[in-house]
Order: sequence, then C-alpha cells, then structure tokens
Amino acid sequence: MRGVMMYGPGDVRVEERDMPQVVETTDAVIRLTATCICGSDLWPYRGAEPLHSTPQAMGHEYIGVVEEIGADVENVKVGDFVVGSFVASDNACEICQAGYQSRCVHNVMMGEIGTQAEYARIPLADGTLVATPGLPDPSLVPSLLAASDVLGTGWFAAVAAEAGPGKTVVVVGDGAVGLSAILAAKQLGAERIIAMSRHADRQALAREFGATDIVEERGDEGVARIKQLTNGLGAHSVVEAVGTQQSMEQAIKSTRPGGHLGYVGVTYEVELNGLDLFFSGIHLHGGPAPVRRFLPHLIQLIWDRTIDPGKVFDLTLPLENAAEGYRAMDERRATKVLLTF
Amino acid sequence: MRGVMMYGPGDVRVEERDMPQVVETTDAVIRLTATCICGSDLWPYRGAEPLHSTPQAMGHEYIGVVEEIGADVENVKVGDFVVGSFVASDNACEICQAGYQSRCVHNVMMGEIGTQAEYARIPLADGTLVATPGLPDPSLVPSLLAASDVLGTGWFAAVAAEAGPGKTVVVVGDGAVGLSAILAAKQLGAERIIAMSRHADRQALAREFGATDIVEERGDEGVARIKQLTNGLGAHSVVEAVGTQQSMEQAIKSTRPGGHLGYVGVTYEVELNGLDLFFSGIHLHGGPAPVRRFLPHLIQLIWDRTIDPGKVFDLTLPLENAAEGYRAMDERRATKVLLTF
Repeated sequence: MRGVMMYGPGDVRVEERDMPQVVETTDAVIRLTATCICGSDLWPYRGAEPLHSTPQAMGHEYIGVVEEIGADVENVKVGDFVVGSFVASDNACEICQAGYQSRCVHNVMMGEIGTQAEYARIPLADGTLVATPGLPDPSLVPSLLAASDVLGTGWFAAVAAEAGPGKTVVVVGDGAVGLSAILAAKQLGAERIIAMSRHADRQALAREFGATDIVEERGDEGVARIKQLTNGLGAHSVVEAVGTQQSMEQAIKSTRPGGHLGYVGVTYEVELNGLDLFFSGIHLHGGPAPVRRFLPHLIQLIWDRTIDPGKVFDLTLPLENAAEGYRAMDERRATKVLLTF
Repeated sequence: MRGVMMYGPGDVRVEERDMPQVVETTDAVIRLTATCICGSDLWPYRGAEPLHSTPQAMGHEYIGVVEEIGADVENVKVGDFVVGSFVASDNACEICQAGYQSRCVHNVMMGEIGTQAEYARIPLADGTLVATPGLPDPSLVPSLLAASDVLGTGWFAAVAAEAGPGKTVVVVGDGAVGLSAILAAKQLGAERIIAMSRHADRQALAREFGATDIVEERGDEGVARIKQLTNGLGAHSVVEAVGTQQSMEQAIKSTRPGGHLGYVGVTYEVELNGLDLFFSGIHLHGGPAPVRRFLPHLIQLIWDRTIDPGKVFDLTLPLENAAEGYRAMDERRATKVLLTF
C-alpha cells in the first residue's frame, strides 16, 4: 500500500509500505477514505522537531472503513465507517473516564503509526473508534475528517476557555484549529467572538463560522485592542491556537482576571513567567486535546449538517501529491490540505 | 499611634506614626484588635523584594472595630467589629462580581497602607469590610484574623484545585497557608488529603486540620511518592503554597492529567516550561486570593466554631516586639506570629 514518508526537513515522499495487520487482539485495520496534513506535521518538515525515525511514516488524522478487527474488538465491526482521534485510547481507564483520553494510561500516538496512507492499524479500536450512523455522503467526508483532530482540538480549546452564553471569546490563531475554535464557541453559545487574524480569506471563514469581530493587530497592540473591545477588562474566554511565546503572552494578557484561557498550540519553545501568570489571575488549561471525549457529539452535529467544519480544507490533492500539500501549507498557500485516494 | 516600619532587610522597628484619617468618602478607619506577620513580609525582610519606600509601613492583615466612616459608607457603622481582606475592593465592578475581588478594577493593596499598627485606614470600606455577628469572644480573635489572609488564601487554593468529595488532594507547603488549605479541603469534603511536610509540629497540625497522609519527600522523590499513593496517576487536586521553582514543578508533576492545581505561593522567580505544562494536561489557576469572596462564609464557620484556623498562630507577641516576631518566622521558629496591643 502507499503511504507518506518523511526523510528529513522538506523531504516528503510517497512510497510503498507493508500492509498493516492486526497485531494485538484489540486492534482494527481500516481502509482510509481520506486523510490530511496537520499544522504539527510542519514542525519536523521545518526541522523544528526531530523525526522519530528516518524515514518516518507521517500522519495522525483518519477516517475510513473497518477492514479487519482483532478477536477482542466489540464496539466496531468490519464494514463500519469510523472516525478516530489522533491519540488511541482505551476509553476505560480512570483518566479516560474523566474525559482526558489523550492522556489515557495506555495511549498510543497515532503519529507513531502514520495515517497518511491507504490503510492503518488502529490500536485500542474499541476505545478509539466511533462509528458513524451509516456510510456518509461524500460531501460529509471533509467535515468528518476534521473531527479527527482540528475540530476536536478547537472544540476542546473552546470548552477549556469556558466559551458559552454571555461570554466574549477571543481566538488567537487563524489556522484550522483556531477557525474550528470559533465554530465551537459559536455552537457553545458565546455572545461575542473576536478572531485575531490578518488574512482576508481566513477572516472570511472566521466570520462564516461565527466571529463577530476581527482584530488584525498582534502582540501588545493586539492586547490593547482587545481591552478596548472589553471595557478595559480583557475577554472572559481566550483560545490560544498557535503555540509561540508571543501568542501565549498575547493570549494571557487578553484574558481578564478570573477568566479562562484554553491553549492547544503546542508550546515547543515557550517559557511562562511565573509572576506574570500569578498576577494575571486567570485559569489556564490545555494540552493535547482529548478529541475522543467530543467525537460522538461532533459526528452527530456533522451528520445533521448543523456544522460544516470541513471548510477549513482549502486544498485537496491525491495522496501521491502529498509533497506538494506539505509545501503549500509550509508556504501558507493553504490552511489545511485534504489527501484523497 | 504605634506601627511597624521596615528600614531594610532585617531592620524592623516599631515607631510612632500619624493617626490615620478618613481621606475618601468611601474610607473607614479601624482600631485594630490584632494583626500579624505574613510569610510574604519575609520577602523584603530577606532582601528578596525591594521596599516600596524607606521606611515602609508593614502589614496587610487586620481585624478590629470601626472608629470612623466616610460620608458614603453604608455597609458598616462605627462600633462594628470587622474583618477585611489584604486587598481592598469595591465588590461591585464586573471583576468583583465574578468573584475576583483581589483584582477589583479599583483595588488597593493593604500592604501599601500597613496594618501592623494600632489603627488603619481601610479604603472602599463598603466593599472590603465584613462585620461579624457581634463583638467576638477573645478566643475567636486568632481565627478571625486568619480569615483576613491565610485562611482565605488557603481556601481559595483548595477551591481553585477543585478539592471536593471523592477527590485526593495534595498540599505542597506546610506554612500557614498550606495548613489552611488542608482545613479548607477537609471542609470542602475531600476524601484524602496528603500533606507534604517534614516538620513534626506542622505535621501534627496538618493531621488535626484533616490530613490523612503525610509525605516527607520532596522534588522528584516526593512526586514518586504521590504517584505511589494515587495508583500511578497523580492527585485530582493539588495546592501549591510555597512559590519556588521546585515546589511549582513538584506540584505540576503531582497533578494527574485533567486534574486541578491551585497555586497561591507568590511565584517570584519561577519560569514554567511551556511544553511540560502542555503535556501535563492539568488545569492551573491561582494568584492573589480573592479572600473577600469567601469572608462571609469563613466568618460564619469560625463564629459557629466549626473551624479553628487560628491554630496556625504559634507565637503571640505585643506589637512592640514585632522585630522578634519577624526573626522567629525568618528562622522558622514560628509558623505565624500574632501581634497584640
């Protein structure tokens, strides 16, 4: 079968790989309907994060049809159309039961398996995979795939930020996750949603997803603008979906005392000053999103066509052209790239 | 009137000062019944924090009787016995109404006024002071004074850590605030309370306040012990009441993914690694405690003799001997020093 391999920064190839097999009795093997490239895949592509192996199989987002199941799999069957999270989890341990499946005591990072491929082994299938009500209409494929990571991550960020009725929500970051967080904040009933973005196309999608205001300024100027818009207090809820020092500081300073900051941008090179954080008086919560917690609800919203998060994909390419997809995202010519077969 | 002044590190004197007056129409002047020395007063005493002025009037904890009120004060009257927080607040602005009175848009830090004195001006008296049901029995004085800062701060930390039924709570720090957090966690219904302490006298008070377990190890050894006691997962709720790099890291690592860390130790020289925090998956909340939020409830618990937080005071001295009180706390011969008149 064909799959995407990264040999080093900027070096992405589509190659023949062995067909995945059921290894553990709790595994499933799926045939992918679509997969995609994640903003986090750009970290090794840009040399900012080392590869686990050389070459490394890439990808952690996936939807598809169950081809084979291990002897102990009970919740999904061959032929089911399924969506899973970028972290495999048993959905049974104490941490999973508390809603933190991305930190399951038996978690497996799907990035170690590589789902930018025609087939993939899914560990802990019973806890990881959620079957859709039936075979989806092709028009639903992008949105269901978005649920696998960016939508679930943006949703978690909005929940972590306690977006809801009466709240003013600021979203720092206009990538696919930030845009998804806007959609989530809208669904969660937020009164006002301020998108921090300086790209016209992303601003347009932000408004379509529910943003009521756009702020183009960044850093301290951006913070000053947010203060202006919030009676000098800062926002009740802030989502951080970038992960840089500047964006985290901007997000912290944009949150009012007692407010909530949900952060999902991977904070690779961030140091938080303890005293600044102390006197901010904010709530801080984030990390790898427990997408599995939200999947059943998100799938239903998509199935009912209440939300259309698949709009974050603005470039679709065949898997064979994955290298061009990486280039397009790296050069910001695309927000998020869908790969088809 | 007499009051405590700090001239520099280690140099504390009790001197004659001008009688406080009503300045703003929202002020009250109180005659103090008792005051005390705070762990945070040791920062400038040790030269770790500069003085605001030389000399600096010291102290921010207070209880006493209202002597005079400004023309616009309505909620307290002359003769009332009152307890206030270490931050004066209007208790009316949007931030106060959300329960974050320590970050009131009009807040005044009482440390800038100095309440280790016979009399003190209390700004924003209506929002800041809470009258007790009557003149308290002298035996209640230490506990009511504790409510002014350490109890309220420990209580906030336990609330921020979401201590409650079914929860295992770890308290890092066995000073007056940490001990108060143990008492708070017990009142909030925590199932198991683990005190991290290596001082026999503080361990004894920790147990009296509700600790079910004592851990003497610190740093990574302390974390390993907490993991042992929590099925390898870490605690649901952790209180940090020290404020050093080591204690914050110990607290973060002791919290399970999805758990809550309430931190109230002032993090003067702490830098938090963004990636470690990201992958911890915890909730982080803290800062200067909004003691005013909890005062009515805490006063009632003390009045009803449900709690006896005044036990954190293990040395009582006349105000004139304040310098000895500072020395005793600095040398850890005392946990917390009550000053009387």
